[in-house]
Amino acid sequence: MKKVINQPDLAVLEMVEGFLAAYPGKFMQVGNQGYGLVRNERVPNKVTIVIGGGSGHEPMFLGYIGDGLADGAAIGHVFAAPNPETVLETIRSSDTGAGTLLIYGNYAGDVLNFGMGEELANLEGIRTESVRVADDVASSPNKSERRGIAGDLFVMKIAGAAARAGYDLHECKRVAEKANAAAWSIGIGLRPGTNPVSGQPNFELPENEVEFGIGIHGEPGVSRQPMAEADVLTEKMLNLLFDDIVAEKGSELAVCINGLGSTTLMELYIVNRYVSRFLEAKGMKIHDTQIGNFCTTQEMGGFSISIMVLDPELRLLYDAPARAPYFVKGGC
Amino acid sequence: MKKVINQPDLAVLEMVEGFLAAYPGKFMQVGNQGYGLVRNERVPNKVTIVIGGGSGHEPMFLGYIGDGLADGAAIGHVFAAPNPETVLETIRSSDTGAGTLLIYGNYAGDVLNFGMGEELANLEGIRTESVRVADDVASSPNKSERRGIAGDLFVMKIAGAAARAGYDLHECKRVAEKANAAAWSIGIGLRPGTNPVSGQPNFELPENEVEFGIGIHGEPGVSRQPMAEADVLTEKMLNLLFDDIVAEKGSELAVCINGLGSTTLMELYIVNRYVSRFLEAKGMKIHDTQIGNFCTTQEMGGFSISIMVLDPELRLLYDAPARAPYFVKGGC
Repeated sequence: MKKVINQPDLAVLEMVEGFLAAYPGKFMQVGNQGYGLVRNERVPNKVTIVIGGGSGHEPMFLGYIGDGLADGAAIGHVFAAPNPETVLETIRSSDTGAGTLLIYGNYAGDVLNFGMGEELANLEGIRTESVRVADDVASSPNKSERRGIAGDLFVMKIAGAAARAGYDLHECKRVAEKANAAAWSIGIGLRPGTNPVSGQPNFELPENEVEFGIGIHGEPGVSRQPMAEADVLTEKMLNLLFDDIVAEKGSELAVCINGLGSTTLMELYIVNRYVSRFLEAKGMKIHDTQIGNFCTTQEMGGFSISIMVLDPELRLLYDAPARAPYFVKGGC
Repeated sequence: MKKVINQPDLAVLEMVEGFLAAYPGKFMQVGNQGYGLVRNERVPNKVTIVIGGGSGHEPMFLGYIGDGLADGAAIGHVFAAPNPETVLETIRSSDTGAGTLLIYGNYAGDVLNFGMGEELANLEGIRTESVRVADDVASSPNKSERRGIAGDLFVMKIAGAAARAGYDLHECKRVAEKANAAAWSIGIGLRPGTNPVSGQPNFELPENEVEFGIGIHGEPGVSRQPMAEADVLTEKMLNLLFDDIVAEKGSELAVCINGLGSTTLMELYIVNRYVSRFLEAKGMKIHDTQIGNFCTTQEMGGFSISIMVLDPELRLLYDAPARAPYFVKGGC
């Protein structure tokens, strides 16, 4: 797999440099690896939101630093958690004294390293809370053991809006946990993505098969089946989601159809055609739909569907303005 | 190549339906194929901007209908021009009486069919002008014979801002032509994309080679060379661009690093790292940088670099607010 990189070991650092060059004056680079990114604009006494995780899923995470979203992102090597020092520096460099809410996917490495970074920050007197996003219904029957995938974006959006609205640390955590509890996702894999450093594909799959419930690092899903038409795939995914989703008729939903890399917008729109009909037939109200590549795995083929069930507070926070390089809401 | 579609012949129509479902009340579907999309919001006496071309390049064109951008898009089947009836209906349904400026890439089929649609509109008394975008330096030494690629977005942005600012039809055309003359692009291909209807790849290329100057339908480029590091590829592309670009030291530039489908944001950021250094070393001022998938060819691997040289009027129009599903500027 041809990748447009220079030295593989430098790919993440050069990615950060190239990203920063597109937004002069907007962000600073912190941590001794240079893998912490923090907004330069500070709002006094605002709770800060720090997100992060492994690289390779762009625009997740660095694309979501901005007004009404995250104040900083701590990233790691490709598909690897940020180190504790990066987490600490990102917290320290963004903190305003009002405390920092950490939001990251529920993966062992992230839990460990964000936890250590948090402890180090606490030792310096910086207050922190953390929320581990766990939206992938295919990863475990128990919510607390689930992985975080594209639903991350919903949780970040809610927490970022709460912090911007002046919620304190405890309240920001409360709504982020509420968003996390209200967010469900499932993905399918069609083709592997390639780790740009190792050159290895993240899974193997016969050309005529599709894997339901696959994770964003190629973690095994719930079943492999023959490739089928878009509507058949989508219905199966929605049924798996609704085995789990708690939502009464008339519930308002935020929907995200997320491409994993090489699946086209044309395909994602065709998926959304079925999703919108299915949800309407279930008596749900679609409040907002986001379609695009929000959380990728290199050039992996496949997509995920995320649904967040909104209550009035979540809806208000969801609709609040946000402006980050790869997510804009409201305004204009 | 597995594609998430239903019946291939219905892919474009179902794509439009799925796109529309994400933006309820925002757009209407016109033309007997249903391939014309028009904003529902009208601004009295505003010149309307109608864009379009073949499907398969999403989010180009339907993603760029919105405030400060296009009023309508006429699309065709995959990689095929919209038919004249679709062009006519899109013009007719968006026109406010102030006339319509058509902006499309300089391809034989588009020239023919937009031209026929325009004539039909003129027969009904609707005034039109048109601009054929021709930014791809690799496609011909003569500007008038060049194809339009991602630079389309720059021309649409300028024209959309002019129309929003109250420029008349003649003046909208003047600034769109100025933007077109000031826009230069070049692409490279690493891997083919697959036509979702025919199932055919759009070109063939050995695994260890890269094609400079390839078109967005796989049109032959200027040379095939061994795959190389990102900085080497990028420098060669920039040198080809600057063989042609007319810009004094201190010129202000808008830059677009456009992914063609399966090339990752990580790679595009690494490309931008070199682009920004190169332009600064040339004494240019980077006014704005856009990095993402703006004009794709299904899951094709590769990317393009577009540069627009701004004069004060173009800069003002470039910076003006715009809000379309896949392009937002200013505001918030």
